[in-house]
Amino acid sequence: MREVYLDHAATTPVDPEVLEAMLPYFSTIYGNASSLHTQGQKAYNALEKAREQVARLIHAKPEEIIFTSGGTESDNLAIKGVAYRNKDKRNNKGCNIITSSIEHPAVLEVCKQLEDEGYTVEYLPVDEHGLVDLEALEESINDDTFLITIMYANNEIGTIQPVEEIARIAREHDVLFHTDAVQAIGKLDVNTEKTSVDLLSISSHKIYGPKGVGALYVRGGVKLEPLLNGGGHEKGRRSGTENIPGIVGLGKACELLEKRMHIDNPRIAKLRDKLIKGVLEIDESYLNGHPVKRLINNAHFRFTAVEGESLVLSLNDKGIAASTGSACSSKKLQASHVLKAIGVETSRAHGSLRLTLGRGNTDEDIDYVLEVLPGIVGNLRQMSPLWNR
Amino acid sequence: MREVYLDHAATTPVDPEVLEAMLPYFSTIYGNASSLHTQGQKAYNALEKAREQVARLIHAKPEEIIFTSGGTESDNLAIKGVAYRNKDKRNNKGCNIITSSIEHPAVLEVCKQLEDEGYTVEYLPVDEHGLVDLEALEESINDDTFLITIMYANNEIGTIQPVEEIARIAREHDVLFHTDAVQAIGKLDVNTEKTSVDLLSISSHKIYGPKGVGALYVRGGVKLEPLLNGGGHEKGRRSGTENIPGIVGLGKACELLEKRMHIDNPRIAKLRDKLIKGVLEIDESYLNGHPVKRLINNAHFRFTAVEGESLVLSLNDKGIAASTGSACSSKKLQASHVLKAIGVETSRAHGSLRLTLGRGNTDEDIDYVLEVLPGIVGNLRQMSPLWNR
Repeated sequence: MREVYLDHAATTPVDPEVLEAMLPYFSTIYGNASSLHTQGQKAYNALEKAREQVARLIHAKPEEIIFTSGGTESDNLAIKGVAYRNKDKRNNKGCNIITSSIEHPAVLEVCKQLEDEGYTVEYLPVDEHGLVDLEALEESINDDTFLITIMYANNEIGTIQPVEEIARIAREHDVLFHTDAVQAIGKLDVNTEKTSVDLLSISSHKIYGPKGVGALYVRGGVKLEPLLNGGGHEKGRRSGTENIPGIVGLGKACELLEKRMHIDNPRIAKLRDKLIKGVLEIDESYLNGHPVKRLINNAHFRFTAVEGESLVLSLNDKGIAASTGSACSSKKLQASHVLKAIGVETSRAHGSLRLTLGRGNTDEDIDYVLEVLPGIVGNLRQMSPLWNR
Repeated sequence: MREVYLDHAATTPVDPEVLEAMLPYFSTIYGNASSLHTQGQKAYNALEKAREQVARLIHAKPEEIIFTSGGTESDNLAIKGVAYRNKDKRNNKGCNIITSSIEHPAVLEVCKQLEDEGYTVEYLPVDEHGLVDLEALEESINDDTFLITIMYANNEIGTIQPVEEIARIAREHDVLFHTDAVQAIGKLDVNTEKTSVDLLSISSHKIYGPKGVGALYVRGGVKLEPLLNGGGHEKGRRSGTENIPGIVGLGKACELLEKRMHIDNPRIAKLRDKLIKGVLEIDESYLNGHPVKRLINNAHFRFTAVEGESLVLSLNDKGIAASTGSACSSKKLQASHVLKAIGVETSRAHGSLRLTLGRGNTDEDIDYVLEVLPGIVGNLRQMSPLWNR
């Protein structure tokens, strides 16, 4: 049976070139980067080379890159790290942090945690396409606001936020701006020189690098409280022996993106368009998210009278890996907070399907999906009491 | 030139069997363990198998294992996780947390951070061998004490604490007991059934597993506040997409230890004894740490009128990887807090050398060290104004 992986927003396979770059660092060049001897020095050199590779991709300085264990830690470090430097602003009336209602849980749950600790958070609504209203954003800012955290692009519906404008507003009001760029890196031209973002989260395993590693861009001069105390690694901002093979992998993944994204992305976007066009020929199927301002690899649908979970499992039986929304919430069987926020009724939100393309997908993959999906939707509808045709 | 790695307390090479177990999980079985499809299910199965492997080594239940990004995160999660559940006990007069003065920075710096947040911490002194006094420990406990955190074995001088007795005292007083077992795992019979420890930190890269992954044992019923909020992984106790290849590697490393430690350890201990005996034939050389209650792979010396850093660099020139103390502090050129705590004068503490053995070391390695070390010490002393012979 054909195997088609269309869940690249959940995770990606490690690129063979990335794995090749990592391999020597497991059992041959295995030193601790803090050690004085040659083994340690080689590890340190690999660490700093990777820091340059990550920095180059987003037009940052190497010293502005902190390595973490992944996107979730990067988001936690950015938001809590800034909040804990601004403890004196807690328990005031004004709003401390502004975010959107469609953030990843690694941002939303951190904000909820900070509310428990006495911080105040404003959750901006979004329009039917998932876009944040810039006027509403500007109106929410007040004297107590120290941080805006709004994602670069949404992990479920793929909507791209007006990040440059948000950054400009933040800068004008002297408020720090963090963006979770986990889904945007490699798909958009993320550039910290052009965009006045102060903190930016990166995950390795979403860009054909290994799991268990990520990075946080911290603009020079921005101060953070560390989350992990200890040996003082990463200039005291993130303690813990550096994950050299993982970091080397992330560095290589960034280098490959720099080389390949301008070739890969137009091809992926074309496949995505073909997929959307084909799927929307199915009766009562709808595209979620913005028609134009969306990630080049994201297609997110809903189908009347079909359960997303059943759809994913039926596609899986045909060798197609898909998702209802985010991987994180896929086992929880709750309606997506993102779909709720863009105004999809709960009953309809359960009928969602996310197909996210990647480097390895071909024209034949899309043909195959378009061949089997209409039948699957039809079968599920025949079994559904909600389908009255 | 012969290459002899004697810095296994800093980090270890990944065992070839461990790497082999990990390899399929980078580019072939690459799913997100939260995904519903087959790729995700395979990743989930690998995750749970590794959880069983780690649990088995320490006689725990799989559900008592939380995967983290390493020993530092495990220590942070254990101590802060318990402290943040006991916020109401802050700012009282009594002592909240009891620790020792020779802990790893991942414990000591967390304790200092918690002091800044209003918790009170008692730092128990140790004797000249690095042992905690059990009577002093018991006397420090009062009504506000909710946690004792004392390492299983010291990372610099290798002294093994009376962990069973500490655990018994903690249990009698209804206080939770955390131990940083990062150096002990694989060298001692760490058994959570026999020892009433409540929380126990494990690092993968110290036991021939990959860097960037660790585990925290949390006895059933013990409640923790998470440090990383997000998608609710690890039953809400540690969010972030699971590092499947790394976790598979840690699981395999634990399985190998279970099979091999009873064969490897007596051999390593014998080499270590030969090394100590040989080195102590050098004039004015001393063994730091306990003569008997020490890790089977640890040899820690000091030499009159010799700088530890010069010693490490000279050994490196001969192909021998060694350390002055912990890797974390090796570039800071500060006298070790551990040596200070056992009463070594600052001037003498700078002349320290840690040699830590591992699976790959041979009799010939030790012969080689014993062949070159006396000459190196002699040369350095000839250049030293402190040496008056």
